[in-house]
Amino acid sequence: MSSQLSRSETLGLAALSLACATVLANTFSGEGAGALIASLALSGLGFAACYAMIRWLGPTFIKAGLQGRDMAKLNNRDVLPECMGAVCAVVYLLIIIVFIPFPFYKDIVLATSGGGNRDVVMNLDYVQKGRLLHKFPHTKLASYLAAIISLQFITILGIGDDLFDIRWRHKFFIPAFASIPLLVVYFIDFGVTSIVLPTFLQPYAGRELLDLGFLYYAYMAAFCIFSPNSINILAGINGIEVSQSIVIALLLAFNDALYLITPYPHPATDSHLFSLYFLLPFLGVSLALWMQNKYPARVFVGDTYCYFAGMVFVMVSILGHFSKTLILLLIPQIFNFLYSVPQLFGLIPCPRHRLPHFNARSGLLEPSVTKWEDKQPKPLVRSVLDLLASLKLLRVAKDKDTGRILETSNFTILNLWLVWRGPLREDRLAWEITAMQVAVGLFGLFVRHKLALLVFRADNWDLGSAV
Amino acid sequence: MSSQLSRSETLGLAALSLACATVLANTFSGEGAGALIASLALSGLGFAACYAMIRWLGPTFIKAGLQGRDMAKLNNRDVLPECMGAVCAVVYLLIIIVFIPFPFYKDIVLATSGGGNRDVVMNLDYVQKGRLLHKFPHTKLASYLAAIISLQFITILGIGDDLFDIRWRHKFFIPAFASIPLLVVYFIDFGVTSIVLPTFLQPYAGRELLDLGFLYYAYMAAFCIFSPNSINILAGINGIEVSQSIVIALLLAFNDALYLITPYPHPATDSHLFSLYFLLPFLGVSLALWMQNKYPARVFVGDTYCYFAGMVFVMVSILGHFSKTLILLLIPQIFNFLYSVPQLFGLIPCPRHRLPHFNARSGLLEPSVTKWEDKQPKPLVRSVLDLLASLKLLRVAKDKDTGRILETSNFTILNLWLVWRGPLREDRLAWEITAMQVAVGLFGLFVRHKLALLVFRADNWDLGSAV
Repeated sequence: MSSQLSRSETLGLAALSLACATVLANTFSGEGAGALIASLALSGLGFAACYAMIRWLGPTFIKAGLQGRDMAKLNNRDVLPECMGAVCAVVYLLIIIVFIPFPFYKDIVLATSGGGNRDVVMNLDYVQKGRLLHKFPHTKLASYLAAIISLQFITILGIGDDLFDIRWRHKFFIPAFASIPLLVVYFIDFGVTSIVLPTFLQPYAGRELLDLGFLYYAYMAAFCIFSPNSINILAGINGIEVSQSIVIALLLAFNDALYLITPYPHPATDSHLFSLYFLLPFLGVSLALWMQNKYPARVFVGDTYCYFAGMVFVMVSILGHFSKTLILLLIPQIFNFLYSVPQLFGLIPCPRHRLPHFNARSGLLEPSVTKWEDKQPKPLVRSVLDLLASLKLLRVAKDKDTGRILETSNFTILNLWLVWRGPLREDRLAWEITAMQVAVGLFGLFVRHKLALLVFRADNWDLGSAV
Repeated sequence: MSSQLSRSETLGLAALSLACATVLANTFSGEGAGALIASLALSGLGFAACYAMIRWLGPTFIKAGLQGRDMAKLNNRDVLPECMGAVCAVVYLLIIIVFIPFPFYKDIVLATSGGGNRDVVMNLDYVQKGRLLHKFPHTKLASYLAAIISLQFITILGIGDDLFDIRWRHKFFIPAFASIPLLVVYFIDFGVTSIVLPTFLQPYAGRELLDLGFLYYAYMAAFCIFSPNSINILAGINGIEVSQSIVIALLLAFNDALYLITPYPHPATDSHLFSLYFLLPFLGVSLALWMQNKYPARVFVGDTYCYFAGMVFVMVSILGHFSKTLILLLIPQIFNFLYSVPQLFGLIPCPRHRLPHFNARSGLLEPSVTKWEDKQPKPLVRSVLDLLASLKLLRVAKDKDTGRILETSNFTILNLWLVWRGPLREDRLAWEITAMQVAVGLFGLFVRHKLALLVFRADNWDLGSAV
């Protein structure tokens, strides 16, 4: 497979880069929502850079041993480069860093006496009030930088994971380390640990806000561990890691956009601008990766990408104070995790790989199975398996004569989907799962904005703490 | 070679960790220079963690292909783990991140109205004045975070370099990318681009300060490119990369300490505390690496370590505003770079490796050479080679009959040292170069503090811009 760009690819990427560079140059002199336009232009540049680099670096990655075979293809003799998500991550980080002056520069001009001296008296009381798009609070700079540190840390640890094949039980905690910068800076720079109580609980508690204190940090850490891992375990077929991430990022961006088009300056506008600044470049680099990872895959993404994507979502939702919204968008991942628990925690035997089984004769994917031949589940487990089978949440094959369980389908959402829908071609399965993610996510946002008013006083809390 | 710690190593590291953890726990309730003590304790923990992990991870690194052979040993059949500097970098980054609350927490308690709300009026006019050790300016948080981002970026790129064996001409610019976060945050958060003119120039310029503007950023970028690369090319024998870095870090820390023991609160105290917070953990992890990389090496450090070390020095010197002091400490590296230029830029043929030649019969290192057998230098080059030979800055071997140049020693300081001192054992050479680095560095600091007054009005400028 060629590592060169085709003529049309080269022309397209060059044209896109030129257009984006022009737009970017114009935003320097612009006013108003300049930072958002700059972010869009940089995302376009990120797409072009990422697309080209993924193609060019393929042979280099293979030579360095970052390679794999696609087991769900008839002709799987070619090795494909693995861990291409690392390229995305590095390009993304560079964009996010170059972007820093756009939202943060204007305030500095106001806040310093020129020449960069900070020995001037200034008031911070304009912070946390409604304001125009281009007046971004400088106090957010520390949050922005902390988010970059967390994302870089997860990139380093993700690359380590891809290189060293860390054991599942250990790598589960990789995102915990990467969450430390976020928690530390949250601790010293923000420190809001109160949540808004649902209205029906307020009379009993006698207050609107409940300060969770230390527990709030535990909640954030748990969320940091969960999100990247949940993306990482919904994997195994071409394109699925990237397409689910793109869907979640698009829905988060859509949710952010809702706050920007309000007629009045919404108190949460800044949080959602902040979120967009992180999501747009992510969409740019992810799209470039997806185009080369979709069926039939030319490259693999690696754990780095999954961790990275999950961490981007956690960053924007925690620092933007809408982590509950993210939970609604992660419903398929949460289901997949809960459904996987029996195998992940060893209640049911777990083979090394649980990706769907490729039937070379039909060319279709079928549910992969765990064999029970030599041993049988304990009675309690057996009755749970029977229950799941009767609920159509599992395929159980039994010996007709003895009633012994021969095999059960593996506990992942991909296998379950194949149990429901029958054998599917790999790209079809990926599309259906992606469509399901879109549908569930849109429903989640609907719940967030329409039904939340039933249990909370306002759609948003003006301290920004209505997470 | 065992990847386990010996009994005495385990006991020693455990005792050290326990002691450091105890000290750390006490600093939470402490006052005064608590942050500096916390930094010391964390550095001790970093040493222990790094020492143990380097040992434990050896087989994992070898399995992942990060390995090499030691060519300067008689028995070089064993492969040794390569790129162990990445372990140092990750442990270091974790320490530096966990450390954030220590210097930055107190100001936040003062600056917010409790609960982390930032919507209070506060004055920034106490910034940039003399203050006690524990009152660290919160505005420095952004600088601190930017430094972490730069260090993480160079770690990612360094690992990429070690994995992919990037070509020399390309990897020279790796530190340029890593300097972007520093430059960007410097731009928006500090922006001092003036330098103090030497006193004898002031009458002509009609002012004390000269604003370099854009050129100042070019200077910083060039410095960011130079420092990591200069550490990276003074390499090739066991322990030398780490020992030179430890010497430079110790001398920088010594210089910082000079500002802390002044009887009055020196205006530059903060900058030098800032510097110490970065240097102490660096010394901790570097010492752990050095103990396993020194002759005879059990592990190799990789380019990651060299880039990382060089970037730590640039960070502290630029953000602490003493980059000229760092230049004085890098004199051996600068000499080595200038001396290497003829080969680096292809004026003289450059073999793939220029490390000293191991004479298996004597067990000693000798200068490695470039052969001129089939071709001869151009007349101009030849006369320069002759000049260098007569100045004892090169060993040139000539054919006695024809006068043709047969071979010249390679242009590195290590080979030059061997030309001067004759064949040396590897550890002896490393010690002598390290001793030379100490001597030159101490002289540099003497020049900085005693002779600088001849050309500058004061030892330091109270805006902190007397770099």
